[in-house]
Amino acid sequence: MDNRNFTLLTDYYEITMMQGYYKNHVDQKVVFDVFFRENPDDGGFAICAGLQQVIDYIKGLHFRYEDIDYLRSLGDFDDDFLSYLASFHFTGDIYAILEGSVIFPGEPLVKVVAPIMEAQLVETAILNMINHQSLIATKAARVCYAAKGRAVMEFGLRRAQGPDAGTFGARAAVIGGCVGTSNVICAKEFGIPALGTHAHSWIMAFPDELTAFRKYAELYPANTTLLVDTYDTLRSGVPNAIKVFEELREKGQIPLTYGIRLDSGDLAYLSKKARAMLDGAGFTDAKICISSDLDEYLIDSLLAQGAQIDSLGVGTRLITSMDTPAFGGVYKLSAIANGEVSSESSENWEPRIKLSENTVKVTNPGNKTVFRIYDKKTGKIRADLIALAGETFDVEENMLLFEPEASWKKTRLEGGTYEMREILVPIFKNGQCIYESPSVMDLQAICQQELESLWDETRRLVNPQSVYVDLSDKLYDMKKELLEKYSQH
Amino acid sequence: MDNRNFTLLTDYYEITMMQGYYKNHVDQKVVFDVFFRENPDDGGFAICAGLQQVIDYIKGLHFRYEDIDYLRSLGDFDDDFLSYLASFHFTGDIYAILEGSVIFPGEPLVKVVAPIMEAQLVETAILNMINHQSLIATKAARVCYAAKGRAVMEFGLRRAQGPDAGTFGARAAVIGGCVGTSNVICAKEFGIPALGTHAHSWIMAFPDELTAFRKYAELYPANTTLLVDTYDTLRSGVPNAIKVFEELREKGQIPLTYGIRLDSGDLAYLSKKARAMLDGAGFTDAKICISSDLDEYLIDSLLAQGAQIDSLGVGTRLITSMDTPAFGGVYKLSAIANGEVSSESSENWEPRIKLSENTVKVTNPGNKTVFRIYDKKTGKIRADLIALAGETFDVEENMLLFEPEASWKKTRLEGGTYEMREILVPIFKNGQCIYESPSVMDLQAICQQELESLWDETRRLVNPQSVYVDLSDKLYDMKKELLEKYSQH
Repeated sequence: MDNRNFTLLTDYYEITMMQGYYKNHVDQKVVFDVFFRENPDDGGFAICAGLQQVIDYIKGLHFRYEDIDYLRSLGDFDDDFLSYLASFHFTGDIYAILEGSVIFPGEPLVKVVAPIMEAQLVETAILNMINHQSLIATKAARVCYAAKGRAVMEFGLRRAQGPDAGTFGARAAVIGGCVGTSNVICAKEFGIPALGTHAHSWIMAFPDELTAFRKYAELYPANTTLLVDTYDTLRSGVPNAIKVFEELREKGQIPLTYGIRLDSGDLAYLSKKARAMLDGAGFTDAKICISSDLDEYLIDSLLAQGAQIDSLGVGTRLITSMDTPAFGGVYKLSAIANGEVSSESSENWEPRIKLSENTVKVTNPGNKTVFRIYDKKTGKIRADLIALAGETFDVEENMLLFEPEASWKKTRLEGGTYEMREILVPIFKNGQCIYESPSVMDLQAICQQELESLWDETRRLVNPQSVYVDLSDKLYDMKKELLEKYSQH
Repeated sequence: MDNRNFTLLTDYYEITMMQGYYKNHVDQKVVFDVFFRENPDDGGFAICAGLQQVIDYIKGLHFRYEDIDYLRSLGDFDDDFLSYLASFHFTGDIYAILEGSVIFPGEPLVKVVAPIMEAQLVETAILNMINHQSLIATKAARVCYAAKGRAVMEFGLRRAQGPDAGTFGARAAVIGGCVGTSNVICAKEFGIPALGTHAHSWIMAFPDELTAFRKYAELYPANTTLLVDTYDTLRSGVPNAIKVFEELREKGQIPLTYGIRLDSGDLAYLSKKARAMLDGAGFTDAKICISSDLDEYLIDSLLAQGAQIDSLGVGTRLITSMDTPAFGGVYKLSAIANGEVSSESSENWEPRIKLSENTVKVTNPGNKTVFRIYDKKTGKIRADLIALAGETFDVEENMLLFEPEASWKKTRLEGGTYEMREILVPIFKNGQCIYESPSVMDLQAICQQELESLWDETRRLVNPQSVYVDLSDKLYDMKKELLEKYSQH
């Protein structure tokens, strides 16, 4: 990928606030959390993605001369602050839930612990990257779930919201389960299979469909997928494809992988008819690929109708997450240092809270971490637990979980039946990256394992069961105390 | 902006098809059209944007060594074809409707006339850029229409689908009518005002709200907008803001621009209450800015309820075009050269058509152009007319327009009462760019004029009147003939 500097990929107010902190000598360390409030598509989970791009962004953070000159030209900034910016780099700590993980509303996905000016600057870009890729990875996981093991190919570049949306979106889609992408720049950059068949224009560029099919089969003898809907799927496309396959069979040259692609019309009806025609001609191993405005609901419905589908190309509705095109992650201040502090402890961190009339918009205060609690026998997730940094738990003890917004809903975990894992892990320490991302195809495998840690009740597309995200007693008490304090305000 | 090479920003099948054309010596000139089928949000129009990025892309088209090496590594391409790619550049002609123009379904927005290999390669990137920016420019025009002259600021970067979606999206939003953007990289690159206030974290970083407000007012004495909803809008935020304004008034230091921002809660109720409180304290010129999940419908509803609003920050729902997050533009082959051809004439262009069971998905064949017909007296658009390239019309003659899909719906334009302008204009000739884009702020002014060429019936948000897009008699007859030919197939 081209070397890009994203330092100015930020909201203007981040820089005006930075100057404000600078002028007022406000330079304490603070804790900011990234979290989201609702799963996309009313689903039961989301998939975390985009961390690699956040890492690249943080590593590359610096204001170039031209950036400083530009800021100076705006007239809002003083020379002393601009000099500070010229030598700016990130010195803080960053924790994150790793890419490919299943995540739930309310829990910190990324935690930034840094002097306030640094932590403020990076808000916008971190949100942009995590929001975008988590959205698309989640959609891909849903689409692949609906496809029930059939290969799903990401085909959305032309409908994506700009080049990055196509490229980082395809990356996220592959993390979420797609087998590859049509986007060549993405395939090259991230070591992902580059996939595709051919377009209607291929057919229209030749005198007739049969000639176009023959030429294509000649050209790509190992993988011959013919697009059959340019003129008339069942009266022209499929019969011509069968004719070409028969010619190949006569010559003993049946491709390793071959078949047809349906790109319009009633895909349930057409795929069943096409399957029968292919089988009738003896091509039972010919594959049927479908595309055309697919999403998880349409795929689910087509399969329920007995559609004959071997693989799917999914474009617009995946690459834009059409039903829920924004993830809604936010970045909120949760603690300010008051004395010596460490990222790994809650000592000397003065908690901060943002109130709201809307209960779910009240933030969780303090320097926190996240534990995932697994059932020992099944390996499935029982709950996530947000705790204060440094809190320890004994898995041999019983644990009482309760929903923070409905604390009468209690679940008792018996000691010895569960395991806990801290899932918010260090990525940067004192400005140095201490984590190396797996390849995208490895992230896909990790994501697959993560999805298997969910009960089917949580994975289903409609009206799924929520996974509990609970607060530790200490965190709950801290939050209650702050709420009391500010509501008397 | 960083120098980026988008040559591989294409679908893999474009390159495999290119090799197919190369191997089969298919190198005729062809015509491809970009068009879209439905206005976003069931609106009456769309706004064209993204051409500047298409121009940059076409100018920069070349395969670098690393691109060729990558393609070779995939095993699908022969050396002779890879050598051809190594010396590839674009030699064709491109026509386009200019940025900021109002556009309607079915008409060619971009026309590529080039040898088929070149025309095939550029499909995906052109669609990506035009689809994305036209979508956001259209949404911005709708949002600004609802705001009835109030300033709308683009605030969506953190929720955009990746960095480009935030940056090119903000560019498009400003073309569509936003007064500026919070996105610094976009403001710098495109000479757009960089805008913003401050965040909740600013308030939370100080011991109390009043101190935070005072510090902010000290710092930005020319433009002091205070965010009042961190703790309690009416009981804490607005009274504290008024206290700070009173202190400034006592010192004779009332800012040129000052006021408050409401970012949550019932914005109709809160803005009316806050207005009364500000007015009661004598701050009748204090401005009220609102933000929080705004879109054209919510703005329309707030204003209908008498909400007191001076300016608006619009984020997620604009930058993602939330209700319709994809534009749906397509790129279809419409003619193949058969002999000597010119981009400006339909002679020797063999028309091509793509059929579909769905009538609106049948393409318009031939080498075409687009005329816009204005009412001479009002300057408003009467209709658009898609014609064959080289067709001429006499505006002193009567003209009979009819809808191509409902040809009994006829409109007669009396000679002398209308004017015609060819709106598809040359951008590239023989691979050379012959057009220079106006600045983004100039494009905004152009777009404003364009919007004024629409009747209000077409601009309204819900259930608008369509503008007719008609076919010339010659084009209509050509299409009918091809439909007859292929339906006998």
